[in-house]
Amino acid sequence: MTATGQTPLVALLTDFGPAAYAGVMKGVVLAHAPRAQLVDLSHAVPPQDIRQGAWLLYSSFTWFPEGTIFLCVVDPGVGTERLAIAARTRRYLFVGPDNGLLWPTLEADGLVEAVALPVAADASATFHGRDVFGPAAGRLAAGTPLEALGTPVSRLIPFAFHRAGREGEIVYVDPFGNAITNLPPLGGRRRYAVEGPGLPVELPWYPHYGAAPAGSLFLVTGSAGTLELSVKNGDAAAAYALRAGMRIRLS
Amino acid sequence: MTATGQTPLVALLTDFGPAAYAGVMKGVVLAHAPRAQLVDLSHAVPPQDIRQGAWLLYSSFTWFPEGTIFLCVVDPGVGTERLAIAARTRRYLFVGPDNGLLWPTLEADGLVEAVALPVAADASATFHGRDVFGPAAGRLAAGTPLEALGTPVSRLIPFAFHRAGREGEIVYVDPFGNAITNLPPLGGRRRYAVEGPGLPVELPWYPHYGAAPAGSLFLVTGSAGTLELSVKNGDAAAAYALRAGMRIRLS
Amino acid sequence: MTATGQTPLVALLTDFGPAAYAGVMKGVVLAHAPRAQLVDLSHAVPPQDIRQGAWLLYSSFTWFPEGTIFLCVVDPGVGTERLAIAARTRRYLFVGPDNGLLWPTLEADGLVEAVALPVAADASATFHGRDVFGPAAGRLAAGTPLEALGTPVSRLIPFAFHRAGREGEIVYVDPFGNAITNLPPLGGRRRYAVEGPGLPVELPWYPHYGAAPAGSLFLVTGSAGTLELSVKNGDAAAAYALRAGMRIRLS
Repeated sequence: MTATGQTPLVALLTDFGPAAYAGVMKGVVLAHAPRAQLVDLSHAVPPQDIRQGAWLLYSSFTWFPEGTIFLCVVDPGVGTERLAIAARTRRYLFVGPDNGLLWPTLEADGLVEAVALPVAADASATFHGRDVFGPAAGRLAAGTPLEALGTPVSRLIPFAFHRAGREGEIVYVDPFGNAITNLPPLGGRRRYAVEGPGLPVELPWYPHYGAAPAGSLFLVTGSAGTLELSVKNGDAAAAYALRAGMRIRLS
Repeated sequence: MTATGQTPLVALLTDFGPAAYAGVMKGVVLAHAPRAQLVDLSHAVPPQDIRQGAWLLYSSFTWFPEGTIFLCVVDPGVGTERLAIAARTRRYLFVGPDNGLLWPTLEADGLVEAVALPVAADASATFHGRDVFGPAAGRLAAGTPLEALGTPVSRLIPFAFHRAGREGEIVYVDPFGNAITNLPPLGGRRRYAVEGPGLPVELPWYPHYGAAPAGSLFLVTGSAGTLELSVKNGDAAAAYALRAGMRIRLS
Repeated sequence: MTATGQTPLVALLTDFGPAAYAGVMKGVVLAHAPRAQLVDLSHAVPPQDIRQGAWLLYSSFTWFPEGTIFLCVVDPGVGTERLAIAARTRRYLFVGPDNGLLWPTLEADGLVEAVALPVAADASATFHGRDVFGPAAGRLAAGTPLEALGTPVSRLIPFAFHRAGREGEIVYVDPFGNAITNLPPLGGRRRYAVEGPGLPVELPWYPHYGAAPAGSLFLVTGSAGTLELSVKNGDAAAAYALRAGMRIRLS
């Protein structure tokens, strides 16, 4: 229990998939904070894909209650010199690698302070989720103050989704093959001019999936409030070789 | 906590898969009801497949404690005119789209009352799980009475699994390729006459998987108490092109 | 709540995959113990693979808080004469089939007592998770003493991972294709002589994934403290036909 008597909430975002790694990390959190409430944000971040993990966190965190501790592990640099960090923003707490994964979210919610977590000599070189990040999140959930977890760090590795006017990028391809961009819709627009590898030069926009014809590529405003490329009852990403990081212009 | 001091239980059934959509919806529920206990019934309903979602709910709900709130989202019509509803049956509460998904269960447990949920003007047209259903389930979990969530609705969209004597249908194909029917076994019967596209004219029944020979199609009484087509250590659905909705006669 | 006022923790390990079976089993646990905290260790044990399930449990259990109840179902013999058991070790409780799945863990933590669970006449022949194991775990979580759940059993089915000097076996292939062995590293060793079907005669060892060159097979000390065969950004198991149970010598 925290000082206020609230049940601490720990939300997990990883690329661990369905194997036991996430479960073990939860065991570690609960060993430190038996009353913590654990919620899976997702464990299906594409392996080691910092960009897509960063987008999932950035587009999701505001829906969680204030005070939620986000335990995020997409960590291609595990075992190398990259820092392990815990950070406090205006409304939330975050634990994860300092590789850009947390950056857009820390920036959006207003970073207040960050600490570098110590990595014990006997920590596994392949599983900091269990040996570094999980214990830190567990201690935060048990009420340990952020400052007690490590040494202050003033500079973090930045990461930004590409955006220049109406040129943005595909930030996430969901498991159904919808390709989410970071470009907001243009109010009232029903057709967009498109520039992107292998894409039609123009695409229609529909207000919801139900309005689109089956089988052809269209744009819809997705749940993050940005434009999304979809094929109704189909896999847009497979059909058009769409992948995260691809630049696209929609105007 | 509800008035009675019980931890409210919210069980989730969706076709969201392993992406972050279910996690976000949980965040929303917890923002309304921080002490709710969340349980995943499944997020692996085949995309937009109302029939299979309806069967999973119908064959599962009785195993949950009385008072459980089922938050169910298989919603091909999201953003269209279909109603969003919350309903009370004799023993449970349900939240989801009015598209037949809940119907067999509401009927089986005895529908007491239902309300149509308001859809705010700024609700996403693609993610009512987050903007309509999640908040409703969260408010129910926080103790808000059903009547306060919307306007009474007297007629819901019906849905029934096909059944005429010994003709039924495949209601669910599980991830291992077992094809579950809605036909109960005939007591003591060891062989069944079969009518269905591409199927043998007769199939043996075994009391459990262990008793069946490897590699050939057989019938077993599944956990829902109905007949199931299986191949031991194999994928019956792939081998015989079985899919949900296919009619079958077993006599 | 248990007698001590602690929230009881139930960790689940099954081969049920993402379907609703695990969700139903959780409903049953909660029907017996509404305040239990449920944690998924994993539901992605390869179907009916007792060896890999046993390894996942054995390599994970110590990370959970003392008193955790492990509800484990990998059960190819469901419906046959194999016993259903509940067991207490020095620090934990376990529920599952008596088929070797629990054995290495019971042995490692020190088995104190075990009981055979009754199987009711109306239990499903395909889903003891719901009808036998779930209720037993729920009753333990609700504070029922182990002895009250069944009749004492003195002999359980043993199972051991193969190990003879520097010859061991692949005990688990994770979803990314990393092949975990049960062989500990040799301190300071940077190259290993290898004997195993289709494998190179020698392999380099790297201290972490980040240090390895992309695309070629190497050894790393995995999170369980044993040697692991990996291809950086690749699928070692697919490339070298590695599978659980394969014998391997690393010296």
